[in-house]
Amino acid sequence: MKPFREVIKANIGDAHAMGQQPITFLRQVIALCTYPELMDDPSFPLDAKLRASKILQSCGGQSLGSYSSSQGVSCIRENVAQYIMQRDGGIPADPDNIYLTTGASDGIASILKILVSGEEKSRTGIMIPIPQYPLYSAAISELDAIQVNYYLDEENCWALDVNELRRALYQARDYCNPKVLCIINPGNPTGQVQSRHCIEEVIHFAWEEGLFLLADEVYQDNVYSDNCKFHSFKKVLYEMGPEYFTNVELASFHSTSKGYMGECGYRGGYMEVVNLHRDIAAQLVKMLSVRLCPPVSGQAAMDVVVNPPKPEEESYNRFIREKEAVLSNLAYKAKLTEEIFNQIPGIKCNPLQGAMYAFPRIFIPDKAIQRAKELRMAPDMFYCMQLLEETGICVVPGSGFGQKEGTYHFRMTILPAVEKLKTLLQKVKEFHIKFLDEYS
Amino acid sequence: MKPFREVIKANIGDAHAMGQQPITFLRQVIALCTYPELMDDPSFPLDAKLRASKILQSCGGQSLGSYSSSQGVSCIRENVAQYIMQRDGGIPADPDNIYLTTGASDGIASILKILVSGEEKSRTGIMIPIPQYPLYSAAISELDAIQVNYYLDEENCWALDVNELRRALYQARDYCNPKVLCIINPGNPTGQVQSRHCIEEVIHFAWEEGLFLLADEVYQDNVYSDNCKFHSFKKVLYEMGPEYFTNVELASFHSTSKGYMGECGYRGGYMEVVNLHRDIAAQLVKMLSVRLCPPVSGQAAMDVVVNPPKPEEESYNRFIREKEAVLSNLAYKAKLTEEIFNQIPGIKCNPLQGAMYAFPRIFIPDKAIQRAKELRMAPDMFYCMQLLEETGICVVPGSGFGQKEGTYHFRMTILPAVEKLKTLLQKVKEFHIKFLDEYS
Repeated sequence: MKPFREVIKANIGDAHAMGQQPITFLRQVIALCTYPELMDDPSFPLDAKLRASKILQSCGGQSLGSYSSSQGVSCIRENVAQYIMQRDGGIPADPDNIYLTTGASDGIASILKILVSGEEKSRTGIMIPIPQYPLYSAAISELDAIQVNYYLDEENCWALDVNELRRALYQARDYCNPKVLCIINPGNPTGQVQSRHCIEEVIHFAWEEGLFLLADEVYQDNVYSDNCKFHSFKKVLYEMGPEYFTNVELASFHSTSKGYMGECGYRGGYMEVVNLHRDIAAQLVKMLSVRLCPPVSGQAAMDVVVNPPKPEEESYNRFIREKEAVLSNLAYKAKLTEEIFNQIPGIKCNPLQGAMYAFPRIFIPDKAIQRAKELRMAPDMFYCMQLLEETGICVVPGSGFGQKEGTYHFRMTILPAVEKLKTLLQKVKEFHIKFLDEYS
Repeated sequence: MKPFREVIKANIGDAHAMGQQPITFLRQVIALCTYPELMDDPSFPLDAKLRASKILQSCGGQSLGSYSSSQGVSCIRENVAQYIMQRDGGIPADPDNIYLTTGASDGIASILKILVSGEEKSRTGIMIPIPQYPLYSAAISELDAIQVNYYLDEENCWALDVNELRRALYQARDYCNPKVLCIINPGNPTGQVQSRHCIEEVIHFAWEEGLFLLADEVYQDNVYSDNCKFHSFKKVLYEMGPEYFTNVELASFHSTSKGYMGECGYRGGYMEVVNLHRDIAAQLVKMLSVRLCPPVSGQAAMDVVVNPPKPEEESYNRFIREKEAVLSNLAYKAKLTEEIFNQIPGIKCNPLQGAMYAFPRIFIPDKAIQRAKELRMAPDMFYCMQLLEETGICVVPGSGFGQKEGTYHFRMTILPAVEKLKTLLQKVKEFHIKFLDEYS
């Protein structure tokens, strides 16, 4: 008999699983593409039908069941390029530089694979933030590449400090060939949103050091703090002038899984590459073609994300209402989570400026660290297991993401519905106080 | 100005792109899963609604937009196991041994990756048929594994000869560690269907030599010759007795892309593993989890394939009618293609017992071989380019699949509609006669 009534899963960024409803327009378009007989159904709005019919016209035999080209359906790549251009205030985007992917993970793993080479000291080093989203460490280890850690500055809202990048790079050059710099903005698990100034510094650094920039921007729609704004690396790169935008290699990623849509299961995503060498691009296409193409329904989902209803269209109001409802709800929960965590003695939480996670620092008493050691567990793993056992709340220990030695954290999504999130936070509070008490 | 009115693409096994219609029931179920509001639509049959509702109950938040487990939605894995058991006359299948995949290609590439290790002479060798489907050579090269060719016997309807397997294995042991034996049955590009006796011999050989069997069975529904029957490796393995079925490691693959459904774009598939070592299985799940999960709509498509309407259900008649229409049409075209090719002097075509391709052997005169050499092209590439230039017919040269030295082939799908296929075959005939004439 467990001392709780239900398990509350706050461990995965899986919005629909936590009760978030799909965006109606997106599902209507995909349903119409799936079963075109619905084109005659008067209950489906005209704009959804037009979208679906455009997508199908770009599919072989007008069917979602045909293979697309390995790079993705052409009209969808064009819409992605159009979206990027609008997002970035008119800076051009070339559909030939767009690759639709099986979620962002697949794109990231593919581009890393293409970039890794060399043996021993010349083996490719890949710089990643610590804390990081574990896709990176897993992909790096799968590729036998060298993981080069740079630490985000927790004292400074998890900001990225270029001096720290430099330190990490120079040290790494002793044992590998660091060629790739990965940035996650907005941050996962850390939730910071990078300032424009910081991005400029990073780009300048990449330019100076000849690093390939990999910008994971899947949370670009998830920005909550009033004083924060999402700046794409692509935009800042262009605005820094031709010396930069004709030289710095950049791959940036987006996905249907996050934002306001939360369509993880469709495995939709895209990557945009800039200044990718022609030979590397050819190699990339060849590699992607082994797996034939990304799922076409995921591509259709991506199409809706980059080409949502326009103000003059029938579905616009509903779409905006649903989108804003999700995003304002997340913004509310981001604020709430930060506030409550910071009321708990021994927990300190940076503002959740973006993404969908809190990554609070937790104080773990020495006695508990001792106990964890006896159990051969990381101290924060011990903490999270105790939390689960006693409250049914499932979060991920900070050690799964990496953290500065001697600091402890956990990652928790803010996806549970408001009332459930309040319960969750209250339970964490009670648990933490009890935990401190028990082990002090 | 080209000397033809239209390009006829017979190069890719992409049924819907060639005009084949989707199976209504399959699309209804996916549309219902996508947009559950349709559950209230009386024009959708009840059995489709029940299927959809079962799938959604197994999805987080009852949404196709949630991540599934990396191994796939549990109820779909159960249905796959049930399907295999029925297909194989009651031989048990364990849902824990089923992995839903992003098309079969992803499963094949993943399992190969897990099996490859060692350096230089101990590097893993992977035995593949020649001719082969180029996924294999591409995956092997991507993994830096060693490709070990065994030749199918063209004189004997592309049969697999165990003596040839033995020759290939023993020779390969001089330079690598051959551990995996890949079989494609029904064959791609060669269209043969293996006899039960042959499969027994292969399994005995794998058992004797300690090879991991990889059975690509994506064309299991595509068997046309009256004297042929599909036998799964799993079934034959079990029927050979415990000495075999408790020892031989086997992974077999199926897909939504072929058969009568032709749903390539959904990237649905599964693999079943037998006797996979516990550690390897754990490693596999870990690797799969980096990419989170296969597309859930593709998993739903797979569910319909393994759990089609039953005789007592509303959609049964329509489903069977549509399925039989596709398969009998393919059977007709298989026969037609073989017959017409064999009427052409200088072309010799084995029976298309299964799958969806003809792989005729073409005689190329010395003068044409000389001309191809001057152009630095493989002779059959030259032939196929000429065919395309002069007739608009797009087929793939045999050299893309591998062939015995000095023999030439091309692969052509039988997917074009009957009238178009007749036109195509007539044009190939005229082209070939003209080609022989021109270069003799």
